[in-house]
Amino acid sequence: MDNWLPSLITATQTEGYDLAVKLSRIAVKQTQPDATMRDKLRKEYEADAGALIAVSQVVATHFATIALANNHWRDAK
Amino acid sequence: MDNWLPSLITATQTEGYDLAVKLSRIAVKQTQPDATMRDKLRKEYEADAGALIAVSQVVATHFATIALANNHWRDAK
Amino acid sequence: MDNWLPSLITATQTEGYDLAVKLSRIAVKQTQPDATMRDKLRKEYEADAGALIAVSQVVATHFATIALANNHWRDAK
Amino acid sequence: MDNWLPSLITATQTEGYDLAVKLSRIAVKQTQPDATMRDKLRKEYEADAGALIAVSQVVATHFATIALANNHWRDAK
Amino acid sequence: MDNWLPSLITATQTEGYDLAVKLSRIAVKQTQPDATMRDKLRKEYEADAGALIAVSQVVATHFATIALANNHWRDAK
Amino acid sequence: MDNWLPSLITATQTEGYDLAVKLSRIAVKQTQPDATMRDKLRKEYEADAGALIAVSQVVATHFATIALANNHWRDAK
Repeated sequence: MDNWLPSLITATQTEGYDLAVKLSRIAVKQTQPDATMRDKLRKEYEADAGALIAVSQVVATHFATIALANNHWRDAK
Repeated sequence: MDNWLPSLITATQTEGYDLAVKLSRIAVKQTQPDATMRDKLRKEYEADAGALIAVSQVVATHFATIALANNHWRDAK
Repeated sequence: MDNWLPSLITATQTEGYDLAVKLSRIAVKQTQPDATMRDKLRKEYEADAGALIAVSQVVATHFATIALANNHWRDAK
Repeated sequence: MDNWLPSLITATQTEGYDLAVKLSRIAVKQTQPDATMRDKLRKEYEADAGALIAVSQVVATHFATIALANNHWRDAK
Repeated sequence: MDNWLPSLITATQTEGYDLAVKLSRIAVKQTQPDATMRDKLRKEYEADAGALIAVSQVVATHFATIALANNHWRDAK
Repeated sequence: MDNWLPSLITATQTEGYDLAVKLSRIAVKQTQPDATMRDKLRKEYEADAGALIAVSQVVATHFATIALANNHWRDAK
């Protein structure tokens, strides 16, 4: 993949959260490059509460990093 | 979704914790956008101790971020 | 719930740890508000080693936050 | 329990790690106060690779906190 | 293994993320040195949504470390 | 065990990672002191993708601590 992550800096907190969601998905994409298989697995975990909570945990970890990178958007408040 | 996260800054610690709960739910919502399916899954994990503890873990991770953003509400004590 | 978390600052490390335990339980309470159901689930996870370790993980995450808020109680040593 | 955690400051890194192990066990103790039940569960998870790794994860989280409290024992090196 | 990790500093955020993926794999390699067995296990977890999410969690943890090492690439933006 | 952790400071990043692997194993050793049992469990989790990923997560957490202790080896680059 080319330079898909040009910056950790986002204009708003909401965009920062969206970026965290994106970061959580890229690792899955790099580990399982087959899009058809990923679609199949996505169907499975979309219907699995434990998997959805685990996704939310990954997002929380990335959001911590992005929030720190943006100095918690303190200057923007 | 529009700008649902206007700020990480909260007036009190309790509100900061509530925001952490909200952040933990948004990732689930974005991964499983179907409200009917989410209600069904919620019924399942509300009755599953392991899932409830996992939710609590996600909240703890977000709370760490929010507490840091608010300088642990030290100025407010 | 009202303002149940007036401060992250505690007089001692032991009280800080107790607060971490409290924080880990609140998310469960907010996700499963039915006290009877919670008592039932508590019986289950009290007898489940994996669940007890997972609870300990949540407490560890909150304790990190509280220790940071208290500057690791360095001034109190 | 009385004041079982008088300080996060330890003389050496090894003692800091031991304290992390102690902190990981206290949450289990507070959630399951029955010593006989805990002994039974301990027998179980001592023979369960997944549980042992999960214990190690909790210890790692507490060790991060304790290392930070001790300024990573940099002055002691 | 020889000095496989010469630096945590990367030119771009994307390279930093790639390094996080690499770091997450090295621990598996060191714990299971048999390449044939690793290939077999890889086939399994590539088709397991829970395992892919868990991999993503490890990557998120390493990415936090690498982002911090690079001062979140703030000077590069 | 005696003073097995004389320092968190390492000469290189690679040695820092090796130390993280070591720290992740010590907690298992302290929880299950029987070497024969540990060898048996090791055989099990070496062939279990989920367990290997969980080990990698523990290593990632310890590596964050060690990298911080070494100021991310910035002076060494």
